[in-house]
Amino acid sequence: MRFQQLMHVRRLASAAATTLMRRPTTGTTATTTMFPVTSHIATTVRTMAGSGAPIPELTQITDNVQRGNYATLTDKDVAHFEQLLGKNHVLTEDLEGYNICFLKRIRGNSKLVLKPANTAEVAAVLQYCNERRLAVVPQGGNTGLVGGSVPICDEIVLSLARLNKVISVDEVTGIAVVEAGCILENFDQKARDVGLTVPLDLGAKASCHIGGNVSTNAGGVRVVRYGNLHGSVLGVEAVLATGQVLDLMSNFKKDNTGYHMKHLFIGSEGTLGVVTKLSMLCPHSSRAVNVAFIGLNSFDDVLKTFVSAKRNLGEILSSCELIDERALNTALQQFKFLNSPISGYPFYMLIETSGSNGDHDEEKINQFIGDGMERGEIQDGTVTGDPGKVQEIWKIREMVPLGLIEKSFCFKYDISLPLRDFYNIVDVMRERCGPYATVVCGYGHLGDSNLHLNVSCEEFNDEIYKRVEPFVYEYTSKLKGSISAEHGIGFLKKDYLHYSKDPVAIGYMREMKRLLDPNGILNPYKVLN
Amino acid sequence: MRFQQLMHVRRLASAAATTLMRRPTTGTTATTTMFPVTSHIATTVRTMAGSGAPIPELTQITDNVQRGNYATLTDKDVAHFEQLLGKNHVLTEDLEGYNICFLKRIRGNSKLVLKPANTAEVAAVLQYCNERRLAVVPQGGNTGLVGGSVPICDEIVLSLARLNKVISVDEVTGIAVVEAGCILENFDQKARDVGLTVPLDLGAKASCHIGGNVSTNAGGVRVVRYGNLHGSVLGVEAVLATGQVLDLMSNFKKDNTGYHMKHLFIGSEGTLGVVTKLSMLCPHSSRAVNVAFIGLNSFDDVLKTFVSAKRNLGEILSSCELIDERALNTALQQFKFLNSPISGYPFYMLIETSGSNGDHDEEKINQFIGDGMERGEIQDGTVTGDPGKVQEIWKIREMVPLGLIEKSFCFKYDISLPLRDFYNIVDVMRERCGPYATVVCGYGHLGDSNLHLNVSCEEFNDEIYKRVEPFVYEYTSKLKGSISAEHGIGFLKKDYLHYSKDPVAIGYMREMKRLLDPNGILNPYKVLN
Repeated sequence: MRFQQLMHVRRLASAAATTLMRRPTTGTTATTTMFPVTSHIATTVRTMAGSGAPIPELTQITDNVQRGNYATLTDKDVAHFEQLLGKNHVLTEDLEGYNICFLKRIRGNSKLVLKPANTAEVAAVLQYCNERRLAVVPQGGNTGLVGGSVPICDEIVLSLARLNKVISVDEVTGIAVVEAGCILENFDQKARDVGLTVPLDLGAKASCHIGGNVSTNAGGVRVVRYGNLHGSVLGVEAVLATGQVLDLMSNFKKDNTGYHMKHLFIGSEGTLGVVTKLSMLCPHSSRAVNVAFIGLNSFDDVLKTFVSAKRNLGEILSSCELIDERALNTALQQFKFLNSPISGYPFYMLIETSGSNGDHDEEKINQFIGDGMERGEIQDGTVTGDPGKVQEIWKIREMVPLGLIEKSFCFKYDISLPLRDFYNIVDVMRERCGPYATVVCGYGHLGDSNLHLNVSCEEFNDEIYKRVEPFVYEYTSKLKGSISAEHGIGFLKKDYLHYSKDPVAIGYMREMKRLLDPNGILNPYKVLN
Repeated sequence: MRFQQLMHVRRLASAAATTLMRRPTTGTTATTTMFPVTSHIATTVRTMAGSGAPIPELTQITDNVQRGNYATLTDKDVAHFEQLLGKNHVLTEDLEGYNICFLKRIRGNSKLVLKPANTAEVAAVLQYCNERRLAVVPQGGNTGLVGGSVPICDEIVLSLARLNKVISVDEVTGIAVVEAGCILENFDQKARDVGLTVPLDLGAKASCHIGGNVSTNAGGVRVVRYGNLHGSVLGVEAVLATGQVLDLMSNFKKDNTGYHMKHLFIGSEGTLGVVTKLSMLCPHSSRAVNVAFIGLNSFDDVLKTFVSAKRNLGEILSSCELIDERALNTALQQFKFLNSPISGYPFYMLIETSGSNGDHDEEKINQFIGDGMERGEIQDGTVTGDPGKVQEIWKIREMVPLGLIEKSFCFKYDISLPLRDFYNIVDVMRERCGPYATVVCGYGHLGDSNLHLNVSCEEFNDEIYKRVEPFVYEYTSKLKGSISAEHGIGFLKKDYLHYSKDPVAIGYMREMKRLLDPNGILNPYKVLN
């Protein structure tokens, strides 16, 4: 028993925010994936953004993409855009950063990046492109993990970076209005200035845009507390492919006037319209943050502890993460600076609370831990409200995905599964892969039923690939799970959409696309194939 | 100073539930409205359901509705339905309860009520109706307040009452799957059986259907805590007008596979499809419930107290209601059995907390009250965790709308307004109405920026009517508020939709309708005109 005494945690909120901000920004949810450059394996990727990985081949070539029937950019088009936006905001050189995805898996061949300053300019650009049949890819912070925000062929990149203002933050109602190109961290800071917080937090917060978050229905580490963006986003302004501005803004939690169409733009990955502005409900920031890192003997105990956390921590529970033994050990082996407070258990959980009263939260979490130990469900662990120690524990969780790719090739999957079957697939996969895999492990957002399943090996291995895919999708589909819990479909997963969506639904998705983007100019080659 | 001592409130949840269940079931949000039977004033209604009000004239006649170009029911159609559903589930007599709306404002002239038992039967009915061009109105508990769930002309009533099963409730994930025709209270009871609660509570819970709640995006008294149904509903199964079953079910908080089309069926009032099944995230039920009833001297103090409640009660705040002096006094005059613990203040607030630890909640609420009094914002009040007293205080709030119509005619509006301007319209309206009105008052869900504005007078008064409408809609529109916060549009408010939705949005609403219901057979004469 090594339970550390809880420390008084009042006024920890800003320190905790710093912790989160310092997480490695390796994608929208701090997961990374690997891929064999020459092979078309949609969900397995080899390189990490920011690493010294080579520039990939053009995706149109490697993936044998048939270019759509779009017009080709001319000098006259460029001149038109220069007149519209000003020369400084029309880029035709050094476009690599806009053409290559965060993971360096996808590389497009766009010759033009446009940087409008406001909704009217976005509308004017799209109206022109629609009339000319020029294809367009909207781009925010370009931190997506499924190739949704980069061109596949020669689409014009429409960067939202200059629509970056926080228009208003209402301390009383908690409602903020923000432009789509505002960086999440900057938005959160503006909210924190008046004692609020943005109900969304993810690894890429220093570079991702709030408009991109909304367009991809980004998940992150606060979903267990604040729910998803469909609940938090109160209004959206979107520019359609035709250039029409669809004003679905609302600053109210209750507004039952007609169809709730804003949700079509939350999670449709820029294929139905370009989100230019939105309003969001921001909760008050928490005064106290505590983190527990605990060891457990079985997945059954993990589930019991999760139920107990929901029941006893209830309103203050803000994160509930699972790491299995192999995932933890791999990270500890790769990163010697990591210091796990406990070892020797098959399962670990990271449980975070955020509340308005540090003493109360401390008492609740101590009670929760004590009861769990008494019942024999929790074996050992650490609980802390000390900002430094909170950061240290989060670091363990954050380095887990990186540990798996540090010196290995890794097949990675982001799936939602029923909690009762949550971990089975890891055992099943371990058996299927046998000696071919070096590590088969699972970790993820237990509180959201979101598993990151990982199969790593020395290098890309076709035998493993065949044993893993499409089995993992079929398995997930049979349990009516989601084959993409938080990353979306983008370019990389569109061939697998049918595992989670029935044909009637996919048919109506196509109809929605036709209705809102009749010429198909918006983010082609994505989501639907 | 009459602050009662807080009582120990552990294990109060079930008692509190009883309290809520006993609220007068006077509509989806315990508000009622009055109307002059012979005059077409869409949002002003005279009678209450369950009262001895006379049966209204046929709406097609009173409101001069032009019947759509639909087929007319034949004996052959009835025979077909009898074969399909069984004779017992095809009603052709005693249809008054299905034809007349809850408020006895709208009366249709349907000759046929169909009661399918499952999704397949709903699909078969709609496919037939679509081919025959027979118009259909889906009907749940028929508790709506805007005439959305009754026929206007001779539409076939499609009752969901037999799709009433709670299919599953998962204690671990909190996810429940339920058929659309399940009564909200029954659903909640099933959730409570395993320690969960349905994140939706409203006055009509004993008779409204969960499918109707979802179809109307019902609000109620828990929105301030659990958000709206777009966040809580994880999946929807809907049958389209063509009879196609659109399976958008999901049992996961995270599922980013394609367009999030389920939201089109949340709040579209049965005009785009018939919801037959849904999954919902149910939080754990709270062990402790406390209620404070406080008096304040100004609306500025009300706002400060609301901010303080959000900040200090934070995660345990579960209701924040406002009642002004005139609204309270009218109720007290009409209902002598009501007993207000305080009097003599221009504003009153009812603040409820629900949490997992009674002692902690008690301490938080005492601190909140103490600080508010010290700052001079809260003048006096009562705080209690005693179930009987909690019920007594809620009763005051619940009787306020009834007090205003007890012996008067009342113009009633359900609007969302920016909190900073929340109460101004009451003063403005009081001045506009001058001596013509007997009471002009405001109350409502302050925590959701949802005001119930009321103008009462001895009997319907055309002078007041002209002074109030369309002024109230124009005023709301100028502040970018919502002209229907929680009741929806239905039949009664469709002429006012443009005050809250711009023409481009309304245009795309029409396109959505055309796409999903090409023959316009589903719930005609509603939402769009």
